[in-house]
Amino acid sequence: MTARLTADTAIIGGGVIGLAAAWRLAQAGLRVAIIERGEPGREASHAAGGMLAPLAEADSRDAFFDLAVAGRSLYSRFAAELKESTGTDIEYRTEGTLYLSLDECDDEELQRRWEWQHAAGLNVEKLDASFVRTLEPQVAPALRWALKFPDDHQVENRRLVAALLAATRNAGVEIISHTDALRLRIENFAGKKRIVGVVTTQGEVRTGVVVLAAGSWSGLIESDEPVALADVEVEPVRGQMISLEMPMPVVRHVIYSRRGYVIPRLGGTVVCGSTSERAGFDKRVTAGGIAGIIEGAAGMLPAIRELAITEMWAGLRPFAGDGWPILGYDPQVSGLVYATGHYRNGILLAPITAETVTELIVQGEARRDISPFSVRRFATGKRDNGTNEIRGNKRKI
Amino acid sequence: MTARLTADTAIIGGGVIGLAAAWRLAQAGLRVAIIERGEPGREASHAAGGMLAPLAEADSRDAFFDLAVAGRSLYSRFAAELKESTGTDIEYRTEGTLYLSLDECDDEELQRRWEWQHAAGLNVEKLDASFVRTLEPQVAPALRWALKFPDDHQVENRRLVAALLAATRNAGVEIISHTDALRLRIENFAGKKRIVGVVTTQGEVRTGVVVLAAGSWSGLIESDEPVALADVEVEPVRGQMISLEMPMPVVRHVIYSRRGYVIPRLGGTVVCGSTSERAGFDKRVTAGGIAGIIEGAAGMLPAIRELAITEMWAGLRPFAGDGWPILGYDPQVSGLVYATGHYRNGILLAPITAETVTELIVQGEARRDISPFSVRRFATGKRDNGTNEIRGNKRKI
Repeated sequence: MTARLTADTAIIGGGVIGLAAAWRLAQAGLRVAIIERGEPGREASHAAGGMLAPLAEADSRDAFFDLAVAGRSLYSRFAAELKESTGTDIEYRTEGTLYLSLDECDDEELQRRWEWQHAAGLNVEKLDASFVRTLEPQVAPALRWALKFPDDHQVENRRLVAALLAATRNAGVEIISHTDALRLRIENFAGKKRIVGVVTTQGEVRTGVVVLAAGSWSGLIESDEPVALADVEVEPVRGQMISLEMPMPVVRHVIYSRRGYVIPRLGGTVVCGSTSERAGFDKRVTAGGIAGIIEGAAGMLPAIRELAITEMWAGLRPFAGDGWPILGYDPQVSGLVYATGHYRNGILLAPITAETVTELIVQGEARRDISPFSVRRFATGKRDNGTNEIRGNKRKI
Repeated sequence: MTARLTADTAIIGGGVIGLAAAWRLAQAGLRVAIIERGEPGREASHAAGGMLAPLAEADSRDAFFDLAVAGRSLYSRFAAELKESTGTDIEYRTEGTLYLSLDECDDEELQRRWEWQHAAGLNVEKLDASFVRTLEPQVAPALRWALKFPDDHQVENRRLVAALLAATRNAGVEIISHTDALRLRIENFAGKKRIVGVVTTQGEVRTGVVVLAAGSWSGLIESDEPVALADVEVEPVRGQMISLEMPMPVVRHVIYSRRGYVIPRLGGTVVCGSTSERAGFDKRVTAGGIAGIIEGAAGMLPAIRELAITEMWAGLRPFAGDGWPILGYDPQVSGLVYATGHYRNGILLAPITAETVTELIVQGEARRDISPFSVRRFATGKRDNGTNEIRGNKRKI
């Protein structure tokens, strides 16, 4: 890059959130630059499982649940649009998710989930064991019953990254890779603070708007003036994964339980996950992590044991105190937009985050109420959303 | 290679058995060629654990046990000689092996082993749990007691391969790699059959002596006339392995139990194994294999779980019907020497096999009685050694 570059919007972070936002902003006519510390899309976006499963993981209806469901509803069109724009099929699969009960503890969890979701009119089905076996003959003999979430789908997240990269390039987005964003340049004008640029290891990008979408690295960027994100630690939560060869289809649905999940891919593999660990920025896989994932997956589908291992990896989910994303403008600094902390939901929330960020920047406000996701909720140490638990994988963290 | 090559001895197979024999034969003044289907030392020799532990695995005294103990006793000098010849340290380590009892079934196995070995005057020690903890503080809380085998040592088998490769090259051995041995050329002279060469994918090697040391591939070589090895199937038995980073020493001894084994390496890793599976020539690692190894190792040393995975692999042990090696001349074909079927003991038996093969070829007979390892034992379907069980890992095959 040149030592100085000017953009309408600079996005810090080239994961699916940054890429999707860049694509939408460029489609809206803006000159967009992405500043990415490594290769785009190679961190949590690459490491993810690609499940679009808000119902399978939800214990109650709240603002996050509604955002996740709204985000999920955008995916079919999002996949089609990416296919049309780039020719890349992101393998959006609609078989749905099966949540298995294999013991009494599972019974309680599934029953609770069924009751509130059924009462709320959500699309969830209660299936007895014999019917589950007609859908998935390889499930463990211990199966008691299952929930089916017909609308909880999946995408191949690595293909999603590739498609978004092609789409942003087609749309004229400048991707500045292998470049660290060091400092937000903020100036005071008539008593108000506003973004004027980003200092990087390759020079300065001058811009009036910055989207901070740096995932687990979001807290490492300095700024000329205090910003609200300083009130929250965006912490990496390691998730280990393994993929296995599946020459014959062992499974067709996404299979989920308290033991983990199993995601079949069209390319003849199956992805199993995951752990949730505080390990800093250490992305190594561990003996205990991998063994635990395999035991969990084999508990649901014993045939997993016979499959050959093709890859093991770990990613760092950005966890922001309560597990909800941080979305919206900084309350004090004009031009600074947060789109980070998506934790286990970055793939699911990429389209709706991109849409929301684009509305914020182009129209000045979002169509949906995003106040529950404001960074303000961390300012006083009180949470607006009534919880301080980690969502979706409470047992491990 | 040239289309035709002449050697005093052609060795088929460039694993530790073939390499060690080649080294000794070249030291005795013979012109030796090794015919190796891939890269030398990259199959079972590379995949092994490097334990030199005949006592830890033996339930009784027999000809195989005596061979293994005699082989072990050569290692110290063998390592020193390789170091002197090549400069390569094969990391011969003498901390010894601890065999743990973690439950009642272990108690029985250890007690049985202790009784016969102690009565036989072998070097085995009975240790109580608290003393074991002074030796290895990381052993599992479930530890009841242990046997220590002070003379059951280990080498780093990949370094052994590298050292043997350098030693054979120094000694003038010709290694013909990436070349399949297709057919033994056998002629009749005055009513007697004798070896005259080996047809390979790169032409013929003319020789009066062939050492068949092709491990799991030994049964795939054709011959002009029937040979005795045709009476036995040398079958590959897959062993999966995993190595882990060990930045702080978690363990110093080789740790063994019915669950598997853990071998500390000087380079800051620890090797854990293994499975025993009939999977043909498939060297892939499987989900169940790797998870089983980790669970087994963590059952002995819980800290294993926290260690990062550095490598996973599998090797094919050559198993010849009863698990004993096949050693000695073919009874009908002059000049054909067998040195194969070493199963789980190729590293341990490489020096003594090399010595024995050299005696057979140079002096015409071996100093020790190797008749129990003759290929003749398979001729009638009867075993000379009184067992048809697989040794050392009877439960799995």
